[in-house]
Amino acid sequence: MARLPGLGPRSAQRAVLFAIKNENSFLEQLINDLITVRDHIRKCKHCGNLDCGDICSICLDVKRDAHQLCIVESVADLWAIERAQFFHGRYHILGCVLSAIDGVYPEHLNTKSLVARVNADRITEVIIALNATIEGQTTTYYIADVLAGLGVSVSSPAHGIPLGGEFNYLDDGTISAAFLDRREVKLSKVKVA
Amino acid sequence: MARLPGLGPRSAQRAVLFAIKNENSFLEQLINDLITVRDHIRKCKHCGNLDCGDICSICLDVKRDAHQLCIVESVADLWAIERAQFFHGRYHILGCVLSAIDGVYPEHLNTKSLVARVNADRITEVIIALNATIEGQTTTYYIADVLAGLGVSVSSPAHGIPLGGEFNYLDDGTISAAFLDRREVKLSKVKVA
Repeated sequence: MARLPGLGPRSAQRAVLFAIKNENSFLEQLINDLITVRDHIRKCKHCGNLDCGDICSICLDVKRDAHQLCIVESVADLWAIERAQFFHGRYHILGCVLSAIDGVYPEHLNTKSLVARVNADRITEVIIALNATIEGQTTTYYIADVLAGLGVSVSSPAHGIPLGGEFNYLDDGTISAAFLDRREVKLSKVKVA
Repeated sequence: MARLPGLGPRSAQRAVLFAIKNENSFLEQLINDLITVRDHIRKCKHCGNLDCGDICSICLDVKRDAHQLCIVESVADLWAIERAQFFHGRYHILGCVLSAIDGVYPEHLNTKSLVARVNADRITEVIIALNATIEGQTTTYYIADVLAGLGVSVSSPAHGIPLGGEFNYLDDGTISAAFLDRREVKLSKVKVA
């Protein structure tokens, strides 16, 4: 239990004592849930998502745009984007990002299968949605370079001021990135009173 | 002292007791500094910044681009942008943003003086850098509407993923705004190895 991320020896001890104390109402359910995960949760053969089955529900959903592909680092990122409920394309989970410190190099990104998928699925738009970290951005440029010449548009989500963000509380890097990427203010046809 | 923002009665009491306990090393200096602020700090007649003099050092700096204007809500926002050390134009401090709840309406924005300044200073680019709040964005569109037809480019800093941001920790609104404003990934001429 202490090997779980975020749990040290003391927290693990508390967790185990809690489970023992609540054997019927919690421990039994936890064991059953973990067995279910072990026996049924699989990695989607098409995109790397986690679901019950060889192909996940997102890849199977015919209502989604099969020609729009969003590349993410992990399942957690996919869940974050899905929670926002605005993206209706498909996903491709890399599983990692380039990191010399962690020994992750280009060969670990499995870009051959990505290129094969872009061609096979006749993808027209790729959105590389990796975290705004050095590793994420390095990987973004690497993948964009791999996809160059395939005839697909390659974009990445904008960097800038987060929703509700106030300049006084933002770091210099975010502010300067936001200014560098500034946009014309487009007015609608409704005149502001 | 308890009227200061962020200080309640108890914190104010602690602050006063600290000042009394450290009369020579702190209280005396505090009194002198506050007298200096009262006697010397003024609002710049040109832009609303705070400095020692009727015109602030930014407005007086001939090395800055006098035709590029950044509109901000407050002096604190100006300081945040200046700390990042990338913007070399001039500023215009509104002092407030539209807010029906707070009773701030268009007539409080003093846009006449803003338009006069844009014309008099022959401004070619206006960057409306207001906070990414509902009030800030409403005010952005209002000011853009006021400036429409003056022949200046009007832009605002990009909204999106902040530097170091990870999708798993971002809110739905920021993620969807970042996707909506996504950009083509531009590769440099140096090929990624």
